[in-house]
Amino acid sequence: MNYKMMGRFVAQILGIECVFMIPALVISIFCEERAAIKGFALSILIIALLGGVLYVICRKGKKRFYARDGMVCVGISWIVLSLMGALPFYISREIPAYIDSFFEIVSGFTTTGASVLPEVEHLSKGILYWRSFSHWIGGMGVLVFLLAISSMKGSKGGYTMHLLRAESPGPNVGKLVPKMKQTAEILYVLYILLTVLDCLFLLAGGMPLFDAVCTAFGTAGTGGFGIKNDSIAGYSIYIQNVCTIFMLLFGVNFSCYYLILMKQFRAVLKDEELRVYIGIVVGSTVLITLNLHGFYDTLGETVRHAAFQVASIVTTTGFATTDFDLWPSFSKAILLCLMVIGASAGSTGGGFKCGRALLLFKNMRRNLKKALHPRRVEVVYNNGQKMEENVLTNIDTYLAAYVMILIVSFLVISLDGFSITTNFSAVLSCFNNIGPGLEVVGPTCNYGGYGVLSKLILIFDMLAGRLEIFPILILLTRSTWKKG
Amino acid sequence: MNYKMMGRFVAQILGIECVFMIPALVISIFCEERAAIKGFALSILIIALLGGVLYVICRKGKKRFYARDGMVCVGISWIVLSLMGALPFYISREIPAYIDSFFEIVSGFTTTGASVLPEVEHLSKGILYWRSFSHWIGGMGVLVFLLAISSMKGSKGGYTMHLLRAESPGPNVGKLVPKMKQTAEILYVLYILLTVLDCLFLLAGGMPLFDAVCTAFGTAGTGGFGIKNDSIAGYSIYIQNVCTIFMLLFGVNFSCYYLILMKQFRAVLKDEELRVYIGIVVGSTVLITLNLHGFYDTLGETVRHAAFQVASIVTTTGFATTDFDLWPSFSKAILLCLMVIGASAGSTGGGFKCGRALLLFKNMRRNLKKALHPRRVEVVYNNGQKMEENVLTNIDTYLAAYVMILIVSFLVISLDGFSITTNFSAVLSCFNNIGPGLEVVGPTCNYGGYGVLSKLILIFDMLAGRLEIFPILILLTRSTWKKG
Repeated sequence: MNYKMMGRFVAQILGIECVFMIPALVISIFCEERAAIKGFALSILIIALLGGVLYVICRKGKKRFYARDGMVCVGISWIVLSLMGALPFYISREIPAYIDSFFEIVSGFTTTGASVLPEVEHLSKGILYWRSFSHWIGGMGVLVFLLAISSMKGSKGGYTMHLLRAESPGPNVGKLVPKMKQTAEILYVLYILLTVLDCLFLLAGGMPLFDAVCTAFGTAGTGGFGIKNDSIAGYSIYIQNVCTIFMLLFGVNFSCYYLILMKQFRAVLKDEELRVYIGIVVGSTVLITLNLHGFYDTLGETVRHAAFQVASIVTTTGFATTDFDLWPSFSKAILLCLMVIGASAGSTGGGFKCGRALLLFKNMRRNLKKALHPRRVEVVYNNGQKMEENVLTNIDTYLAAYVMILIVSFLVISLDGFSITTNFSAVLSCFNNIGPGLEVVGPTCNYGGYGVLSKLILIFDMLAGRLEIFPILILLTRSTWKKG
Repeated sequence: MNYKMMGRFVAQILGIECVFMIPALVISIFCEERAAIKGFALSILIIALLGGVLYVICRKGKKRFYARDGMVCVGISWIVLSLMGALPFYISREIPAYIDSFFEIVSGFTTTGASVLPEVEHLSKGILYWRSFSHWIGGMGVLVFLLAISSMKGSKGGYTMHLLRAESPGPNVGKLVPKMKQTAEILYVLYILLTVLDCLFLLAGGMPLFDAVCTAFGTAGTGGFGIKNDSIAGYSIYIQNVCTIFMLLFGVNFSCYYLILMKQFRAVLKDEELRVYIGIVVGSTVLITLNLHGFYDTLGETVRHAAFQVASIVTTTGFATTDFDLWPSFSKAILLCLMVIGASAGSTGGGFKCGRALLLFKNMRRNLKKALHPRRVEVVYNNGQKMEENVLTNIDTYLAAYVMILIVSFLVISLDGFSITTNFSAVLSCFNNIGPGLEVVGPTCNYGGYGVLSKLILIFDMLAGRLEIFPILILLTRSTWKKG
């Protein structure tokens, strides 16, 4: 293991975190929030010091960097980032317990949006900004950001590839262009453009600037932290619809946007994952609308709520305009299934991913055919390309790990004595980075009732979900820490 | 596809079903139950006629039989067996609706034990016997029975292997001896011996003969149909404990018993699946006992109920001595997890199977290691033997199909409007051939409240669960019905 190089990475990540905290500090100063000013100033100091020391210790060392190092590095970076990112909440005393602060910021960085706070409107602006901003940077990935801005001397694309692969969602990371640095740059440019666009549309609807920025951050990262207790329900219908559309847009594979910019429209239209994604969204909205017949006054209102909630859950954002825990069983069952499927690979959304589910299905069908005709050679195609067998094996492994983590997490948090639906939906929601679950953790409730052990399990689930399991699971594997 | 040969098989199966119905008819005559006598007599007539006609039509035809034919044959046999086996219930009017009769007998043959009847004590003895007997023959498999008794002229082990493989549970069917016919014989001899032993122990506890035979059938097939409304709760503590022990014994891979008979004790002790199975049973019992602290009067009573319920659920039997739906969340969560894991491969129990779960875990760990060290060759061992890659791939495919069927079934039955816990546990319970679920389908309740569509879905799940998905899924695949 190349510890020195990993140390340098973590030091750089801490440096970036410092810089990102400055706007929050400025907002706090501007709003004269004393506790928050103290929180951010002290946090920046601690993080800068830690990062500096780490950088000095690790400044020299060999350059070789393996796939394993990349995964471990991403896993550790995210944990350190979260441990430090929780400091402002804790130091400002706006979230008194450190475990709750940690839960809240992990929920932020992983774009889950699950909160331990019963209400958020009493929080200071600086803290609210930091909460929402954590979604934005977590959505596209902080290491991807580092790749985009740093020069990475001496890099030949080898280790940057490992880093990007470990942090980007989806079964196989598409390089948009041959150079990883450029890929990262393009991703962030697209991401910033879409976020600004979202913000402008929200402002056009009369939303205050601060609200618009925070909501855009939450939408872009498909996070779901709101700045109001009733999430998005209190805003106008126009704003709700803007959110619906932008949530869905951020759930699309970003390579589609790149293809659009390159004017390869036909490739976008033929993208199988995009078709599945659109099919799921439209299908679920129609089914829920039919099922909700008579639940709301007008058809328009029903469609609006159905579309918003479907968009919010399938993209794993977690905003809400209505308490869907009151919906009939079938609608709730659809939402539970959407929780599992999730958004597209290569988007900021979480979950199992449409593309992965599609490949899983194709692979299953192929293997079934193989059982019927053992001697025939069957190949799995995706977008007309032959899929490599190791990608398919990885998806199977992913599903196995997914199910096992789900079962163990569900078992452990059941110790707190909440109902089965609560616990199951809590695990699903955290693991898939959604936010709200059902019953006790429903859209109008929060995760504050769980004990410390359950919170730690859910924190693990959120991180495992965001980093797609392996970079976190690998930290728990003995062979990772063996020499050699 | 070799339709003629499949027709002959189905005709033979129908013949066996006729013969098996005779004891039920005799019991009905003995007890002077007029409706039941009519039910069985007419059913035997119809089945014999149908089987005879089918045999005459299909008596000549080529002998070539592929893996595909074997699977399709098993799937169709089970469906026909169930369609005909439901007749006595329906004709005797003891279950007035045919869909309910069909549900009940599928639940019997698949050893699920889920009932649509609110109470069973008003049923006639003949019908009760037929219900319980369906567990017994379904447990070890009716095609395995056919293999054991028939001479199978001209067979070189080729197609018998395909049949046995399709009907026997577990990731890879262990041939006990080189010849399949002998393997089937040994399995049934062991099965009959254990059943008789169970019956004798129950008789020794003062259970009436009829009750003992029916209970032994239900235990042996890990089915769960009782002949009392309160399942086993009304019997003595001794009888409850006998049931606990025999349920666990029938959840063990039968090859272990064969090895014991061959005096290969060391091989049994080293069997990894057996160790996992025992570990799960002991661990779950201890955890539930701890969690139930104060729920029952004495520690002894707590251990007894915990052990019984664990044995009943992990072996997918479904007997109950207490309403575990009232237990605290953690205990219920454990039972839900046991529902998924299930008994050992090569036993009469259902579920995902301990052995398959073990291999899934080993394969996941291997693939994780491979991701860390891409160039190293990693092999999965089981009981000291190298596992073939296609077995591992099949397990992955199995999990994928398992999860997909689970999700779709859950979604469809949610249309009936029951709670999420009810629907989820109903699907889990039927798919894993257990019987009781939670809440509306809990141990003191029944499946009668579901609509026809939901019942059909649950019937599909029970069959898919018992036949381990592929023989049923294959019937729905277009390429199965293509020529060539």
